[in-house]
Amino acid sequence: MARTVLLPVLLLSFFLLPLASLALTQDFCVADLTCSDTPAGYPCKSSVTANDFYYHGLAGQGKINPLIKAAVTPAFVGQFPGVNGLGISAARLDIEVGGVVPLHTHPAGSELLFVTQGTVAAGFISSGSNTVYTKTLYAGDIMVFPQGLLHYQYNAGTGPAVGLVAFSSSNPGLQITDFALFANNLPSAVVEKVTFLDDAQVKKLKSVLGGSG
Amino acid sequence: MARTVLLPVLLLSFFLLPLASLALTQDFCVADLTCSDTPAGYPCKSSVTANDFYYHGLAGQGKINPLIKAAVTPAFVGQFPGVNGLGISAARLDIEVGGVVPLHTHPAGSELLFVTQGTVAAGFISSGSNTVYTKTLYAGDIMVFPQGLLHYQYNAGTGPAVGLVAFSSSNPGLQITDFALFANNLPSAVVEKVTFLDDAQVKKLKSVLGGSG
Amino acid sequence: MARTVLLPVLLLSFFLLPLASLALTQDFCVADLTCSDTPAGYPCKSSVTANDFYYHGLAGQGKINPLIKAAVTPAFVGQFPGVNGLGISAARLDIEVGGVVPLHTHPAGSELLFVTQGTVAAGFISSGSNTVYTKTLYAGDIMVFPQGLLHYQYNAGTGPAVGLVAFSSSNPGLQITDFALFANNLPSAVVEKVTFLDDAQVKKLKSVLGGSG
Amino acid sequence: MARTVLLPVLLLSFFLLPLASLALTQDFCVADLTCSDTPAGYPCKSSVTANDFYYHGLAGQGKINPLIKAAVTPAFVGQFPGVNGLGISAARLDIEVGGVVPLHTHPAGSELLFVTQGTVAAGFISSGSNTVYTKTLYAGDIMVFPQGLLHYQYNAGTGPAVGLVAFSSSNPGLQITDFALFANNLPSAVVEKVTFLDDAQVKKLKSVLGGSG
Amino acid sequence: MARTVLLPVLLLSFFLLPLASLALTQDFCVADLTCSDTPAGYPCKSSVTANDFYYHGLAGQGKINPLIKAAVTPAFVGQFPGVNGLGISAARLDIEVGGVVPLHTHPAGSELLFVTQGTVAAGFISSGSNTVYTKTLYAGDIMVFPQGLLHYQYNAGTGPAVGLVAFSSSNPGLQITDFALFANNLPSAVVEKVTFLDDAQVKKLKSVLGGSG
Amino acid sequence: MARTVLLPVLLLSFFLLPLASLALTQDFCVADLTCSDTPAGYPCKSSVTANDFYYHGLAGQGKINPLIKAAVTPAFVGQFPGVNGLGISAARLDIEVGGVVPLHTHPAGSELLFVTQGTVAAGFISSGSNTVYTKTLYAGDIMVFPQGLLHYQYNAGTGPAVGLVAFSSSNPGLQITDFALFANNLPSAVVEKVTFLDDAQVKKLKSVLGGSG
Repeated sequence: MARTVLLPVLLLSFFLLPLASLALTQDFCVADLTCSDTPAGYPCKSSVTANDFYYHGLAGQGKINPLIKAAVTPAFVGQFPGVNGLGISAARLDIEVGGVVPLHTHPAGSELLFVTQGTVAAGFISSGSNTVYTKTLYAGDIMVFPQGLLHYQYNAGTGPAVGLVAFSSSNPGLQITDFALFANNLPSAVVEKVTFLDDAQVKKLKSVLGGSG
Repeated sequence: MARTVLLPVLLLSFFLLPLASLALTQDFCVADLTCSDTPAGYPCKSSVTANDFYYHGLAGQGKINPLIKAAVTPAFVGQFPGVNGLGISAARLDIEVGGVVPLHTHPAGSELLFVTQGTVAAGFISSGSNTVYTKTLYAGDIMVFPQGLLHYQYNAGTGPAVGLVAFSSSNPGLQITDFALFANNLPSAVVEKVTFLDDAQVKKLKSVLGGSG
Repeated sequence: MARTVLLPVLLLSFFLLPLASLALTQDFCVADLTCSDTPAGYPCKSSVTANDFYYHGLAGQGKINPLIKAAVTPAFVGQFPGVNGLGISAARLDIEVGGVVPLHTHPAGSELLFVTQGTVAAGFISSGSNTVYTKTLYAGDIMVFPQGLLHYQYNAGTGPAVGLVAFSSSNPGLQITDFALFANNLPSAVVEKVTFLDDAQVKKLKSVLGGSG
Repeated sequence: MARTVLLPVLLLSFFLLPLASLALTQDFCVADLTCSDTPAGYPCKSSVTANDFYYHGLAGQGKINPLIKAAVTPAFVGQFPGVNGLGISAARLDIEVGGVVPLHTHPAGSELLFVTQGTVAAGFISSGSNTVYTKTLYAGDIMVFPQGLLHYQYNAGTGPAVGLVAFSSSNPGLQITDFALFANNLPSAVVEKVTFLDDAQVKKLKSVLGGSG
Repeated sequence: MARTVLLPVLLLSFFLLPLASLALTQDFCVADLTCSDTPAGYPCKSSVTANDFYYHGLAGQGKINPLIKAAVTPAFVGQFPGVNGLGISAARLDIEVGGVVPLHTHPAGSELLFVTQGTVAAGFISSGSNTVYTKTLYAGDIMVFPQGLLHYQYNAGTGPAVGLVAFSSSNPGLQITDFALFANNLPSAVVEKVTFLDDAQVKKLKSVLGGSG
Repeated sequence: MARTVLLPVLLLSFFLLPLASLALTQDFCVADLTCSDTPAGYPCKSSVTANDFYYHGLAGQGKINPLIKAAVTPAFVGQFPGVNGLGISAARLDIEVGGVVPLHTHPAGSELLFVTQGTVAAGFISSGSNTVYTKTLYAGDIMVFPQGLLHYQYNAGTGPAVGLVAFSSSNPGLQITDFALFANNLPSAVVEKVTFLDDAQVKKLKSVLGGSG
């Protein structure tokens, strides 16, 4: 019993020693978004709480865009700094009846989709052979989309569909092909030259998506 | 119009050429589980279909273990070969009222938990300073657990809890501290020496968890 | 002098010893393309010569495809096994007057283009903000295209253009957007749904590029 | 001879040119510990000397903790900034007769132990199958402990034991299971829930290790 | 038609939303060379234009050094900040008749050489077995030199030779063996001890290359 | 008490379930040296024991080479298969009075040297600026040598010196500059051209080190 009393005292020096010397141990590196990013992620915040590892922003339906009748709500490092440097992040998909997450890639990560509600038709296309891999997914199903390959999801059911998505990167990126082509100032003539699309088609979609040129 | 007719013919030589030369392009590498693993994952299957990128095994409740009143159902590379080499995998947690996913680590990956039903109390402990980071999570909340750190989840509500989990590795591992200590033949004297647990405690848990020695 | 004579004899045991024990050192890993690929590259060939590190296939003009008036000749691991595991590979671009390398991505690597002849207009599009970065490149200029982002090159001059390309991967992949959309059996209705292209446009390009559905 | 005299002069322009243009070459990146860490390590110090690559702190016996009769003296990036970014670091173990390095993990690195004096019993436990791998090590023996797995070392001889340890990370971390469980404010009820340990056991060890709750 | 007019308005909210939330997406990380480097590369510049991804400095012949009758002109991250974090960089070799790029290594990257003019004799030496791999390269040929291995290139033809070089790193380094041995203050006695070169030879080359001691 | 008896039975199903499904978890990957290597290391052995993680071969003095009066005894993956894929390996240096580990690099790893006996003079040379970093190391001192840079160690004391070395790779390689230049069939004329060494010097060392040509 004296031993139990004595030990904490003896331990203090032990504790103080490793705590001092290990103060710089990096178990995690919550992003300090006020600093410049680096190729490996943001510098680490100095003061961290449990809230840094928690995110509530995927709990409700995302803001539906009327054109695509869908919402993609990211929990990447920019929204959820706790994932910085951990090689993982998340997003939520809400797809209304008739809605679609248009053809896109994630340049920096693979995607794993869990369908939690409704029915989703999903597919990706391999490079080289241009093979199409498609599945109809029901609640509880998962599908993986390899890094950098074009893929899409759309509601194939009669009610709203919801998906939770994880990525193999804290900052996977999202390049929607239509937006890359039509929602900027890339001249129509260039778009047509590099895609073989007709001029009328390009101009129509530039108009729809807010592009110029 | 003649152009439209002509082009496919001209394209054939173009297609055949790149298809032949790019036949070895690696967009993905679905695991051939009949081969030996390597440090970077399994060798690639030669013939692949959409089903390789799809998994149904998380759709239903996992098999509840009566001791912990919970189930952990993995979709790692061993169950879901399509994630091989993609740096991501998944699991499903089912935690009954009073249930717990005991203290554990994933030696090879960080974990992202989405709570889809119920209420989950979760926490992890940093190394060095032994700081505890805990949150109570409700449906829709997410929390991230950095690679290799001890963490736990238990049902903190009045109904069943369900979580979907993603990992930053196709094979993150799962080391449950209790099983590592008590569910094998590590002699009780060694367990006691390296944990300071009492002999009676060690022997009790070895008995519960099926260990010997 | 006797020393100089003596030493080689003494050294023999030294040589034989490290050579035996270091026989498994891996300075390089020339691909054995007869084996299955792995996520980190092909298994290593056991017998290697200088020719494995040399490739002649980019020396001449590639086979021009009449539709795009251009040729992309790869020296990826499938053509040039010596680059296996080294994180680098190459290709040659030949672009005739009026020719184009259509919009595409490399899912697994960044690209560095050296223009060696002629004038090339090149551009890439960032994700998120859809910003376009374009340059007109003359002989001697270089431009870098970050991994996974959509980019293109076309001849902007009055004579043939030639470029040498390096990639930050031994197997970077090549996904040409048009081929991914129109050169396979992805149904027209799905293409239209995920791209907002008109039905006539999709069917026209499917016809040109050999797709069905 | 004139040549030997002339050349240094000619070389000056050669030297100055590459020295200027290569001034940013990164052969190493000694940690500037006054900056915030990043996921890949600390920013680099601008002025470096040979002392940055040298460390004397493992030369003598570490400060023995009376509870465990052992000392773990780290030479991680926090103590030895020269290892920053190099994927390696070190530590020294001093284990008195009867002493033990309690069950622990290194979340971010594998460990290689060289026993330089005495006799050490060491073991680690695999995840999944909970298999125990144990060896008794004598002076000159080495053993490797894979990343993230629980392991321990204790003195199995009749005199002091000393070990030199290397890690596959400049900042491997050290999570001692007992300290993670009992040396902080994690409530006893939670510890018991996630470990199945008895309340008396938990409270006893919390008292010994300075924990609360 | 009304639809086409209406949609851009509806889209604005969609655009503003993802643009705000994805503002921190990292498609690339152009080096801010005014900051300290990190083990993964420089922090990212905040304001980027197309010129950051473009480099003109390899367009003309490099400044020939009269001793080696050759020029090595780098386009590493220090000269070409756009390659930061992308795992690729470049250089240009100009080798006059009789010129040589002396024996050297790139500590941090593999090298791919395209010969664009003339005839180049090149070789590298494996570690362990000290096997020599040599080729004579003509315009259009490529050769790969694995990371960290000693290699050389010299003009083996009757006119100037030019090569374009790519590296698997944005900062591969360049360690010329002669400069490492003779162009600094490493004492001659130490050079002789660690190379077995004769004192006269060492002193002669120290004199030629500007070394002291 | 009935509970304690009951639980093991209930647990059996729990155990059998995860053990089956997690059978492919990869905690480690002991090299199967009978297979071909891959860029990430050897395929994994299927049956593993504690001996695979243990190595005795560094316990005694290595075989001294009379020319260098030193021995380098590796415990790389080829000798110690347990380190495969773990990013770490080891070696032992024995350096007699007057002995030297000649100038060399490790192309694939950084080195950490612990001096355990005697006095060692060690140094490395940076690339670019050719700066020399040297230290005299006594028993207990450690020094780190960054990946790919030329370095050396020699006995600077009056008795034998012993060092234990760790590497940040399971297969770091060892390229001794003298052996690369003089212990093979690289023609003397080429050696002279790429090093500026005199013909007599090259031929003398080729004779000493067993080279031809």
